[in-house]
Amino acid sequence: MNYFLKDIPERTQKPRQSGCTMVMDKGLSLRQVEDFLSSAGAYTDIVKLGFGTSAVTPNLQEKINLYKEAGIPTYFGGTLFEAFLVRGQFEDYVRTLHKFGVEHVEVSDGSIELPHDVKCEYIHKLSKEFTVLSEVGSKDAEKIIPPYKWIQFMQAELDAGAWKVIGEAREGGNVGLFRSSGEVRSGLVEEILTKIPSEKIIWEAPQKTQQVWFIKLCGPNVNVGNIAPNEVIPLETIRLGLRGDTFMDFLSNKNFEETII
Amino acid sequence: MNYFLKDIPERTQKPRQSGCTMVMDKGLSLRQVEDFLSSAGAYTDIVKLGFGTSAVTPNLQEKINLYKEAGIPTYFGGTLFEAFLVRGQFEDYVRTLHKFGVEHVEVSDGSIELPHDVKCEYIHKLSKEFTVLSEVGSKDAEKIIPPYKWIQFMQAELDAGAWKVIGEAREGGNVGLFRSSGEVRSGLVEEILTKIPSEKIIWEAPQKTQQVWFIKLCGPNVNVGNIAPNEVIPLETIRLGLRGDTFMDFLSNKNFEETII
Amino acid sequence: MNYFLKDIPERTQKPRQSGCTMVMDKGLSLRQVEDFLSSAGAYTDIVKLGFGTSAVTPNLQEKINLYKEAGIPTYFGGTLFEAFLVRGQFEDYVRTLHKFGVEHVEVSDGSIELPHDVKCEYIHKLSKEFTVLSEVGSKDAEKIIPPYKWIQFMQAELDAGAWKVIGEAREGGNVGLFRSSGEVRSGLVEEILTKIPSEKIIWEAPQKTQQVWFIKLCGPNVNVGNIAPNEVIPLETIRLGLRGDTFMDFLSNKNFEETII
Repeated sequence: MNYFLKDIPERTQKPRQSGCTMVMDKGLSLRQVEDFLSSAGAYTDIVKLGFGTSAVTPNLQEKINLYKEAGIPTYFGGTLFEAFLVRGQFEDYVRTLHKFGVEHVEVSDGSIELPHDVKCEYIHKLSKEFTVLSEVGSKDAEKIIPPYKWIQFMQAELDAGAWKVIGEAREGGNVGLFRSSGEVRSGLVEEILTKIPSEKIIWEAPQKTQQVWFIKLCGPNVNVGNIAPNEVIPLETIRLGLRGDTFMDFLSNKNFEETII
Repeated sequence: MNYFLKDIPERTQKPRQSGCTMVMDKGLSLRQVEDFLSSAGAYTDIVKLGFGTSAVTPNLQEKINLYKEAGIPTYFGGTLFEAFLVRGQFEDYVRTLHKFGVEHVEVSDGSIELPHDVKCEYIHKLSKEFTVLSEVGSKDAEKIIPPYKWIQFMQAELDAGAWKVIGEAREGGNVGLFRSSGEVRSGLVEEILTKIPSEKIIWEAPQKTQQVWFIKLCGPNVNVGNIAPNEVIPLETIRLGLRGDTFMDFLSNKNFEETII
Repeated sequence: MNYFLKDIPERTQKPRQSGCTMVMDKGLSLRQVEDFLSSAGAYTDIVKLGFGTSAVTPNLQEKINLYKEAGIPTYFGGTLFEAFLVRGQFEDYVRTLHKFGVEHVEVSDGSIELPHDVKCEYIHKLSKEFTVLSEVGSKDAEKIIPPYKWIQFMQAELDAGAWKVIGEAREGGNVGLFRSSGEVRSGLVEEILTKIPSEKIIWEAPQKTQQVWFIKLCGPNVNVGNIAPNEVIPLETIRLGLRGDTFMDFLSNKNFEETII
């Protein structure tokens, strides 16, 4: 911190298991990556090259290297895994990961129908040489998964070898964990948390109100994802109680009248 | 592409007549233009310096030159044409285009009442020395133009010498082609396409759902415009079926069960 | 202006008392600040380092210096003042301002309950060595302050030594001056303006429709704030009548038929 403030919640330190911020890069140039790292790199734990953007981003290898030199791993969006899979090119996908030196991989079924045991086999296979993030939840707003199924899927995917499971929300924050209005399916989240440890989940929460909701529920060191690069510093202030939304939440003394000079 | 994927829709190549992406620059600095070009330049066909921003943007000539060196023509937003016209400064406008070496020009009547034959005269006159983009549709949400009028205007403007016609949506995507909610006036678009060839139209579609709608209707090589600089790469993935929204649309084999290992 | 247009409204010149644009920087990197200054610096009067972002922004001193060298003062968001106050660290806050060479300070009570006379004492005390911006309005959407109270607060804060008072809207533009939909509380604003001179108020107006509303009501030289860095040039065109929204508002001759060639 640039100045001393009492009674600021303690943040976990890198490499973090909880309190992670996962950022979505959907096509930054190399210099934009440098800009991002110089402002928000310290608060970023992992970067997703969103959906299939890595297919068409120039200087992909240089970009991955820039992040790696800053100590931040990258992975390709789950949609890309699905795009290879649906074309019968799973082996090509693994070769692509090797080629670019990417050590994390997302396994998802947001756009395809994949029997859950088959999904878990992919997680298991990939977990032997990669750190696997697996995603639960459909990108299809019509497809409602009941809470007990979310829990069952998450537990099975962690058992299969996933490092963490991701709760789907898309870039817009309007499916999966959220209603089309962006409102959190709070009952769903609370039920999930009765069974799955918070630190094993990354909640996609691209909208500020969603980030606030998770931080209020789980505390400053909740894992959130799909954060836009220019929202990482604002998010950090929400975690620390330095934005209006959580200003009072982490104060030990909420009655400050005696502190006024 | 940075890796090989089967069954990816074929994109047209520059210089494109269809499949064009028109980007709106509303005040980028020179270095931001460089950043943009280094990531998304290959997927950008033409850049509009939005509305009257060129009046107050520093280093305007250098900016136009930067785009030109990257093979991307620029033009001033139609509102600027109207601003000169309404002040009786049409000749000054032509001189301004010459001075800055701008070779494309938009003719529009989004903010003024212009008899349509007079608009076509301007198109005709300017088309002798410029590539003309003419825009149909009002910026006034109250002013509903019936479909047969859209068709009649578009045809007359093409006949007058317009290279392409633009369907109005504004930066917000909430007028003209769209309802105030951003929803596409789908009947309008479908009726237009019965009469005007798709490649002669650039659809302003700043919102993702709008881009998806046009790509689903017209295919990967539809012309779309008013794209924000940082949305060009995401748009390219929608064209290629590498984002959830169009993931299944361009796959020849939609039943992929046999491809799963 | 990059070309001559007749009948453009006259803008005030720096250092401005009216017509100010207050920008919210919520975590730009140093190079992003340079980019911003090179495009929009001439149209920016003051920069707020939003809420508590200054706590976690790297290179804070260098950033403040960059703005200062461009002739643009910075100040910390009012939430930071409140964060120090609530912890009994008011003196630390003053030391922090000195340490970073910040000469403007915001006094607000958006997240805390502060008796109004105590707030005015802070304004008075700080105004002896800083230029004080004081903010009226709660960040809590539930807390509706009636118009006569807004006026009473604003007048008392100006009397206590505030250079200008700020009408609260947050970054989202959905509280204080605005309904949760973002719509302006127009009756409130009009009533305020019967008592408080327009040039003494900075209206937080992050959304375009809000900026347009204030410019239509108060003219091109209204003070507006919480402008995103990349919206400063678009805002300038709204002030000048070079965007569709205010195209006709500042034209002396609204009947231009004789001007058409």
